[in-house]
Amino acid sequence: MSDQRIKAGVLGASGYTGADLVRLAACHPNLEINLLTANAHAGERMGQVFPHLAGLELPELIKAEEADWSNLDVVFCGLPHGTTQDIIASLPEHIRVVDMSADFRLRDTETYATWYGQEHRAPELQKQAVYGLSEHYRDAISEARLVACPGCYPTAALLLLLPLLSEQLIGSENLIIDAKSGVSGAGRGAKQGTLFCETGEGLSPYAVASHRHAPEIEQELSVAANTDVLINFTPHLIPMSRGEFLTVYATLAPGTTASDVRAALEQRYRDEPFVRVAAEGVLPATQHVRGSNFCLLGVFEDRLPGRVILMSTLDNLVKGSSGQAMQNMNLMFGLPETTGLMQQALFP
Amino acid sequence: MSDQRIKAGVLGASGYTGADLVRLAACHPNLEINLLTANAHAGERMGQVFPHLAGLELPELIKAEEADWSNLDVVFCGLPHGTTQDIIASLPEHIRVVDMSADFRLRDTETYATWYGQEHRAPELQKQAVYGLSEHYRDAISEARLVACPGCYPTAALLLLLPLLSEQLIGSENLIIDAKSGVSGAGRGAKQGTLFCETGEGLSPYAVASHRHAPEIEQELSVAANTDVLINFTPHLIPMSRGEFLTVYATLAPGTTASDVRAALEQRYRDEPFVRVAAEGVLPATQHVRGSNFCLLGVFEDRLPGRVILMSTLDNLVKGSSGQAMQNMNLMFGLPETTGLMQQALFP
Amino acid sequence: MSDQRIKAGVLGASGYTGADLVRLAACHPNLEINLLTANAHAGERMGQVFPHLAGLELPELIKAEEADWSNLDVVFCGLPHGTTQDIIASLPEHIRVVDMSADFRLRDTETYATWYGQEHRAPELQKQAVYGLSEHYRDAISEARLVACPGCYPTAALLLLLPLLSEQLIGSENLIIDAKSGVSGAGRGAKQGTLFCETGEGLSPYAVASHRHAPEIEQELSVAANTDVLINFTPHLIPMSRGEFLTVYATLAPGTTASDVRAALEQRYRDEPFVRVAAEGVLPATQHVRGSNFCLLGVFEDRLPGRVILMSTLDNLVKGSSGQAMQNMNLMFGLPETTGLMQQALFP
Amino acid sequence: MSDQRIKAGVLGASGYTGADLVRLAACHPNLEINLLTANAHAGERMGQVFPHLAGLELPELIKAEEADWSNLDVVFCGLPHGTTQDIIASLPEHIRVVDMSADFRLRDTETYATWYGQEHRAPELQKQAVYGLSEHYRDAISEARLVACPGCYPTAALLLLLPLLSEQLIGSENLIIDAKSGVSGAGRGAKQGTLFCETGEGLSPYAVASHRHAPEIEQELSVAANTDVLINFTPHLIPMSRGEFLTVYATLAPGTTASDVRAALEQRYRDEPFVRVAAEGVLPATQHVRGSNFCLLGVFEDRLPGRVILMSTLDNLVKGSSGQAMQNMNLMFGLPETTGLMQQALFP
Repeated sequence: MSDQRIKAGVLGASGYTGADLVRLAACHPNLEINLLTANAHAGERMGQVFPHLAGLELPELIKAEEADWSNLDVVFCGLPHGTTQDIIASLPEHIRVVDMSADFRLRDTETYATWYGQEHRAPELQKQAVYGLSEHYRDAISEARLVACPGCYPTAALLLLLPLLSEQLIGSENLIIDAKSGVSGAGRGAKQGTLFCETGEGLSPYAVASHRHAPEIEQELSVAANTDVLINFTPHLIPMSRGEFLTVYATLAPGTTASDVRAALEQRYRDEPFVRVAAEGVLPATQHVRGSNFCLLGVFEDRLPGRVILMSTLDNLVKGSSGQAMQNMNLMFGLPETTGLMQQALFP
Repeated sequence: MSDQRIKAGVLGASGYTGADLVRLAACHPNLEINLLTANAHAGERMGQVFPHLAGLELPELIKAEEADWSNLDVVFCGLPHGTTQDIIASLPEHIRVVDMSADFRLRDTETYATWYGQEHRAPELQKQAVYGLSEHYRDAISEARLVACPGCYPTAALLLLLPLLSEQLIGSENLIIDAKSGVSGAGRGAKQGTLFCETGEGLSPYAVASHRHAPEIEQELSVAANTDVLINFTPHLIPMSRGEFLTVYATLAPGTTASDVRAALEQRYRDEPFVRVAAEGVLPATQHVRGSNFCLLGVFEDRLPGRVILMSTLDNLVKGSSGQAMQNMNLMFGLPETTGLMQQALFP
Repeated sequence: MSDQRIKAGVLGASGYTGADLVRLAACHPNLEINLLTANAHAGERMGQVFPHLAGLELPELIKAEEADWSNLDVVFCGLPHGTTQDIIASLPEHIRVVDMSADFRLRDTETYATWYGQEHRAPELQKQAVYGLSEHYRDAISEARLVACPGCYPTAALLLLLPLLSEQLIGSENLIIDAKSGVSGAGRGAKQGTLFCETGEGLSPYAVASHRHAPEIEQELSVAANTDVLINFTPHLIPMSRGEFLTVYATLAPGTTASDVRAALEQRYRDEPFVRVAAEGVLPATQHVRGSNFCLLGVFEDRLPGRVILMSTLDNLVKGSSGQAMQNMNLMFGLPETTGLMQQALFP
Repeated sequence: MSDQRIKAGVLGASGYTGADLVRLAACHPNLEINLLTANAHAGERMGQVFPHLAGLELPELIKAEEADWSNLDVVFCGLPHGTTQDIIASLPEHIRVVDMSADFRLRDTETYATWYGQEHRAPELQKQAVYGLSEHYRDAISEARLVACPGCYPTAALLLLLPLLSEQLIGSENLIIDAKSGVSGAGRGAKQGTLFCETGEGLSPYAVASHRHAPEIEQELSVAANTDVLINFTPHLIPMSRGEFLTVYATLAPGTTASDVRAALEQRYRDEPFVRVAAEGVLPATQHVRGSNFCLLGVFEDRLPGRVILMSTLDNLVKGSSGQAMQNMNLMFGLPETTGLMQQALFP
C-alpha cells in the first residue's frame, strides 16, 4: 500500500455531500483532512454539526476566507451551485480541485446561464475543467487540475447510456428517463417540502421537464451519439434518504436485441470495479448499492417490439457525489482507483 | 338520507382489501356487515385479526362453507385470484356480487388462462360480469349482478387514458406506463420480499414486462382506441404502505397540445366526485389521496416535441379496490354514489 | 340527525392541526367552515397550501385582522403558542372558542411564565378557560365559552392515569413516562431537525426532562392524586408522521394487582366511545388508532414485584388535537359527542 | 499492518447477521471467508441470496454437513437459537468459534431451559464459553476457544450499566429499561408481524416482561452488582431497519449526581475505540451509529430527585452482533481490535 499522504480540504463541509466525503475519508489510508470550511458553522466542531462523525479527529470548521491554503494538495468542493466559481478561481495554482457542485459541469457557459439563471463567472476556468465521470474520462481526469464531478442523475444515466449510444445499439431520439430519488438529494437546508411529514409515506414528481440535470445528461449523450440529443427527464421524490433509480425507455437499433444491449454493457464494464450489470433476470434495487460507490445496471426486454427497458441505480451521495469525487482524487494522485472505496452496501 | 338497509357479506375479510372495506363500511349509513369469512381465521373476531377494527361490532369470522347466504343482499369478494370463480358461481342468485379479485376482469377467458396460469372455471358467469370502472361503466354497473372491480393499476391508468384515446388526443402506440406502488398491493401474506427490512429505505422494480394488470389495461384501452393496444407497463415497489402513482409517456396526436389534453380531462371529469385534474403546475402526489376514494390526474408538457407527460395517482386499497367496490355497490343499489366515501385524504 | 348548522372559523389553518380539523369537518354534518385564517398564506386557497384538501369548497385564507367575526358561532384556534392569548381576548363575546394551542392549559399563570418564557397576557380569560379533556371535564366543557384542549401527550397520559390516581391504585411518586411520538407533533415549519433525512431510519430523544407537556400533566395528576405530583417525562422522536405512544412505569398500591388496574380502566371507560382498553394480552400500537379519534390503553404485569407497566396510544393530530377539539365542540353545542368522529383508523 | 491470514467460515450465512459479517469482512485485511453455509440455500451464490454482496468473490453456499472444516481457523456462527449447540459441539478442536446465537450466553443451563424452552444440549461446552462483551471480558476472550457474543440489547445495556453498578453509582433495584429496536432484530424469516405494512408508520411494544434478553442482562448485572438483579425490560418495535436505543431509568446512589455518573462512564471508556459518551447536552440517536461498530452513551438529569436518565444506542447488526463478533475475533487472533471495523456511521 502506498504511503503517500494527501492533504485535503473540504469546502462546504456542513452539507450531506461534505459529510459523506469525511465519512469515506476516515477509511482512506492516504487521505488527511486538514481543512473544513462551513461559513454558517465557523467555530464549531464537525461532531456538533454531524454527531455521527463526532468520534473522528478533525479540524475545527472555519470560514473559507480564514483558510490557510498553503499546506493543501487538494480541495473537495461541496458548496451550493453558483457560489463555487469565485472561490475555486481564487485558489492557489498548486491545489487540485475536485468540485462536487454543478458549476463546471456544462461546457457551454450559455447553457449554464440558461439553466442556472446567472452568467458563468469563471469561463476561463471552465475550459480547463474535466468532466469527472471516472469510467469514461479516466485519462483526462488523471491529468486535470479541476475536475467537475457529474451530478448524481447524470452519473447514473451516463454510465448506462454512453456505451449504448456510442455503439449505436439504441436510438438517440425519444429517450425517456423516469427517475426516482431519495430525499438527501435535496440537501440539508430546512425546507417544508423535504420534512418527514411531507415526504414520508408518499411519492411525488418534481421539476418535471425542468430539472437542471437534463442539459448535463444531454451534453454527454450528444458527444456519444455524435448528434444533438434531447431527452425526457422526469424525476420523482421517494420516501428514502439515499438512493437513486433510473428506468429508461429506449428504442433498439434495427436488428439489435435486449441481449445485445446487455452483452455490450457487460463487455464495456467487465474490468470496472464500480459498475456492475445485474445478472439476467435479477432486478437492480437501490438497496443493493446504499452507502457504497457501486452503480448497478439492468437490461430487460420490453413487450413493445423494437424497444428495451434499461435501469441504473446508485447511491446519490456516494457514486453520485462524494464517492465519485474520491475515485477521481485517487486517479489524480496516482493511487489505485478503489482506495478507500470498497465499503460494501449497507443492507438492510 | 335514504334509510335503505343493505345487508352485506365480505368474503376474504382477513386481507387488506377486506379490512379496508370494513373500515369504510363503518361510516356508510346504509350498509350492514352481516357476514365475514376468512377460512384461516374462522372462529376469531375481526378485532383479533385487525386490532384497528376492534371497536366495531362485527360478526365473528367463519369459513365460507358455513355461511348463511339467505339473509344477504350483496357480497364483496376479496379472495385471492383463482379461488374466486367457484365460490361466486355457487352463490344464490338473489345475491349481487362486487368482486375485488382479478377473476372476472378479463373478458377473454383465453387471455385469463395465459396470464393467470389456469383455465377459467366459470366462463358463463364471465359473460355476465360488468367491468366495474364506475366512471366509465356506470349504467351497466347499476344493472349488474356481478361487477368485476378493476385492478388498482388499471383504475389509475384507465381513468387517465380512456378519454384521451377515445377522443384520439394521444397515440395508441408505444404508450409507456412507469408505475410506482406502495407495499400493501402485495397483500398481507408473509413474504420475505415485503418485509420492512427488504423494502424500507429502498426502491426496486418488479414484474417488469410481465405484470398481470397489463392485459387488463390493454383490454380497455383497445376498446377506447378501437384498435389493439399494446403497452409498456413497468411497476416499481416504493417504501410506503398505500398509494400508487403512474407516470405515462405518450405521443400527442398531430396538432394536439398538452393544454388540449388537460382541457379534455377537465371536461370529462367536471361532474365526477372522485376524479380531479390537478390545477396547472400542481404536481399530484400519493399523499393527496391517501386513505380516500379520490383519483388525481396531472398533465405536463414534455420537452420532447410531440409528446406529453401524464400522471395518475390513487390509494390502491380505496379507489383501487375497496372504495371503488363500495362506489359500485352504491350504484347497484340506487344510492347516491358518494355515500360513505367522502372521507378526505389523511395527510400527513 | 340534528339539522343544526354551526358556523365555524379556523385560526391558523396552515398548520397540521388546522388542516386536520378541516379534514374532519368535511364529514361533520352540522359544521360549516366559514373562515380560515393563515397570515403567511393570506389570499391563497386551502388547496394550494394543502393539496389533499383541494376538492373541498372552502373560503379563501385571509389574515386574522381581516376576519368578519359577526357570522360565526365558534372558532377553533390552531395558532402557535404565545400568539393565541391576544387574538382570543379580542374575539366578540358571542363566539365560543376551542383552543388547540397551549396558551390556556395551565391554570397557574406563573407556571405558564416559567415554562413558556413569557408572561401570560390574558390572565382573566385564563380563569374562565375549561381544560378540555372531554372524558373527564364533560359537564364544564358543555357550558364553557373557552375550552383549552389538552396537549397530545397530556391527553394520552391523563386518560390513562387520572382514574388510577384518583382511585389510588398506583402510587403518585416516581411515575416514569417514556413517550414516543411521530414527527407531525413538531409542526409544519421548516426545521432541519424534522427533515426526512434527519428523522428517517432513526430514533432520538428530545426535550429530556424539559418538555412543556410535563407541567400540564402534573397539574391534572395533582388534582386527581390530591397531592403535588412530579413526573419523569422523556419523549423520543420516531420515524412516522402520526401517532404517539406512552409507556408508563408505575408502582402499584399495596395489595393492588395489574388485573385490578385493568378492571378499573375498563370500568371507567366502559361507556366512552373513544377510549378503549386493549384486551388482555393484546399489545396496543399506534397503527391501531392512526387517523382516528380513539385512545387505546394497555395494562401489563411487570416482572418487578409491586410494579405495573401501562400504555396509552393515540393519534396526536386527532384525539391529541383536532379530533378532541371537535369532540369538545360537539359537547358545547349539544350534539352527540361522536358526530363526525367515527372514522376508523387507517391501517395499513 | 499484519499480514496474517485468518481463514473463516460463516455458519448460517443467509440471515442478516451472517450477511453483515460478510459485508464487514470485505474490508478486513486479514480475514478470508472460505466457507459459507445456509442449508435452505445450498448451491446458490451469496449474491443470489443477498444481491448487495454480488460483487464479492465468495464461496458457494453449502449445507453445514458438507463443510470441509480442515482448512479453517475460525467459524462465526449465525444460526438460529437452539440449533447451534449440536453443530458447535461437533466442530474440530482446532477451530475457534465466535457464536452470535444465544445458545451459550447464559451460564446457568437451567435458566437457559426456562427461557428458551428446551434443555441445553452441550452443557460441558457451556462451561468453556466466554461471554463476548469485548470491553469487559477482553482478556478471557483473547484466550477463549468459544466466545458467546452478547445479544444486541444486552450489549447496549451492559456497556451502559456495568461500570455504574460495579462502582455503586446507581441502585440495582427497580432498574427500568425501555428499549426501542429496528425491525432487523426480528430476522429475515417471512413473518406477518414484520411486513412493511404492519410495522411502517407505527410503533408497537412486544415481548413485554418476557423478552429473552432480560435474563442475560440480569446475569451480568448481578455479577457487577454482586447481588441478584431483577430488571424491567420493555422493548418496542420502531419503523426503521437498523438501530437500537435504550432509555434507562435508575436511582442514584445517595450523594451521587448525574455528573458523577457521566464522569464515571467517560473515565471507564476513555481508551475504548468503540464506546463513546455523548458530550453534555448532546442527545444520542440511532442515526449516529447506523452501520458502525460504535456504541453511544448518554447521561441526563432527571427532574425527579435522586434519579437519573441513562441512554445507550448501537446498531443491532454491528456492535450488537457481527461487528462485536469481528472485534472478538480480532482479540482472539492478536490483531488490533479495530481492524476492519472503523467504518463510520452511515448518515443520512
